[in-house]
Amino acid sequence: MPPNDSLGGELRPTPRTTLRRKRDRGHFDRATINSVLDAGLFCHVGFSVEGSPFVVPMVYARIGDTLYVHGAAANRTLRALATGVDACVTVTLVDGVVLARSAFHHSMNYRSVMLFGRADRVVDEKEQLSAMAALLEHLAPGRSTDARAPSPIELTATLILRFPITEGSAKIRTGGPIDEPEDLDLPVWAGVVPFALVPGPAVADAALDEGVEMPAYVRDYPRWAR
Amino acid sequence: MPPNDSLGGELRPTPRTTLRRKRDRGHFDRATINSVLDAGLFCHVGFSVEGSPFVVPMVYARIGDTLYVHGAAANRTLRALATGVDACVTVTLVDGVVLARSAFHHSMNYRSVMLFGRADRVVDEKEQLSAMAALLEHLAPGRSTDARAPSPIELTATLILRFPITEGSAKIRTGGPIDEPEDLDLPVWAGVVPFALVPGPAVADAALDEGVEMPAYVRDYPRWAR
Repeated sequence: MPPNDSLGGELRPTPRTTLRRKRDRGHFDRATINSVLDAGLFCHVGFSVEGSPFVVPMVYARIGDTLYVHGAAANRTLRALATGVDACVTVTLVDGVVLARSAFHHSMNYRSVMLFGRADRVVDEKEQLSAMAALLEHLAPGRSTDARAPSPIELTATLILRFPITEGSAKIRTGGPIDEPEDLDLPVWAGVVPFALVPGPAVADAALDEGVEMPAYVRDYPRWAR
Repeated sequence: MPPNDSLGGELRPTPRTTLRRKRDRGHFDRATINSVLDAGLFCHVGFSVEGSPFVVPMVYARIGDTLYVHGAAANRTLRALATGVDACVTVTLVDGVVLARSAFHHSMNYRSVMLFGRADRVVDEKEQLSAMAALLEHLAPGRSTDARAPSPIELTATLILRFPITEGSAKIRTGGPIDEPEDLDLPVWAGVVPFALVPGPAVADAALDEGVEMPAYVRDYPRWAR
C-alpha cells in the first residue's frame, strides 16, 4: 500500500478492535484516529514482561502512519517493549463528566484511541532525529528548532521505538446524559461538566539568563486536548 | 494484617515495582499512593485477553485498601478482567511539560501510581452499593445522595470489580529542567508549563425541569488533579 493511500481510508476492523456494544461510538477512519492522537499529550502503553502486564505512561508523537515513543535506553520496561512483544497503546482524552439522574447512567465524555501492534527499535540516525524532533513538536510546537539537538552520545542513551498505526480504533462519547424515561421527572440536576487540560502561566528556570525571552509557543501554550 | 494497620505504612517492594533508575522518584508509602489515587479521575487497566494485551480507560474509586472499577456486565474485556487474570492499573496525572535547553532533557512533571494484582467480581449487594456510591462520589463529591440509587436490575447489568492495593508504587517528578552544565548559557528559554484538568461551566441537560437547581458540587466542581 503506498504511503499516501494508507494515510487516508479506514483501518480494517479485527476481532480485538470490533465493538460488540455501542457501535456508534467506534471509529476506524484514519482522520478520526489521527485527530485524537494529535490532540492527546501522552499515551499508556501496555505489554507483558515475564508474564506480568505493565501499563506505562509515555509521551508520543505521530508521523504519518507511525507513532513514536521514547525513553532512557537503560529503562528495563522500555527495553522489554523493544523486543517486539505484543503491545496496546491507548490515548484517552477526558472531555467531561456526565451526571445522569440515576447512578447507573453516569458516564464520561471522552475521545480515546486503542492501537495494537509491536514496537520496533529505531536505529537509523536520520529517523531517530526526526522522531526526536516530532516528540518535541508534540510537546510544544516550535520547540524542536530552539532546543539543542541530541548529540550522538545522547541518541545512544535514548531508546526510540516505532509503533505502526495499522490495527486499532477510536471511541468517542459526546453529549448529555441518557436517562430512563421514568427518571426524567426526578428533582435531580443532570448535565455535563466539561473538562480540558489547561496550561497555567509558564515558570522560567531559576538559572535562566535574564536576556532570554519566553517564546510565543510557551506564552500561548495550547490546551490539551486541543 | 489488621485493616487499620494496612492503611498506614508501606507497600512491600517487589521485583516488578522496584525502581532500578531514578529511585528518588519512587514512593511506596500508602499516604503518597492514596493521595495520587484520590487526586486522579480515571485509570488505565492493562491485562491480556487470549494472548493480546488490552489497555482500557476506566473510572475508579478507592475505599481503604481497595480500588473499584465497573462497567457493563456485557462488556467482554471487563468480563475477561473479572476472570482474575494478572492486571496492572495505572493512574497518571500530568502536572506540566518540562522544557529543557537540550532536546534530550525535556521531560514531564507527573504523579503516577502503578498497581499490580488481580480483580475480583463484587457479588455482595451491600458492597456493590457502597462501591457504586464511591464511584459517584469520586466523579462528583456529594452526588451519591442526589442520584437515584441503582435498582436490582441495574446492579445485575453492572460488573463491579474489586482490585487490591497491595503491590505497587507511586512515581512523582516535580521541578524544573535539569540541563547539562555546558548548556546553561545557551540562549534557549527553559522552564515548566504547568497543567491541570480544569472544569468549564456545567451544561444542564436539555430535558432538565426548570425548577431543578444546579447543586454546589457541580457549580464549584474541583480541578483534576486536585
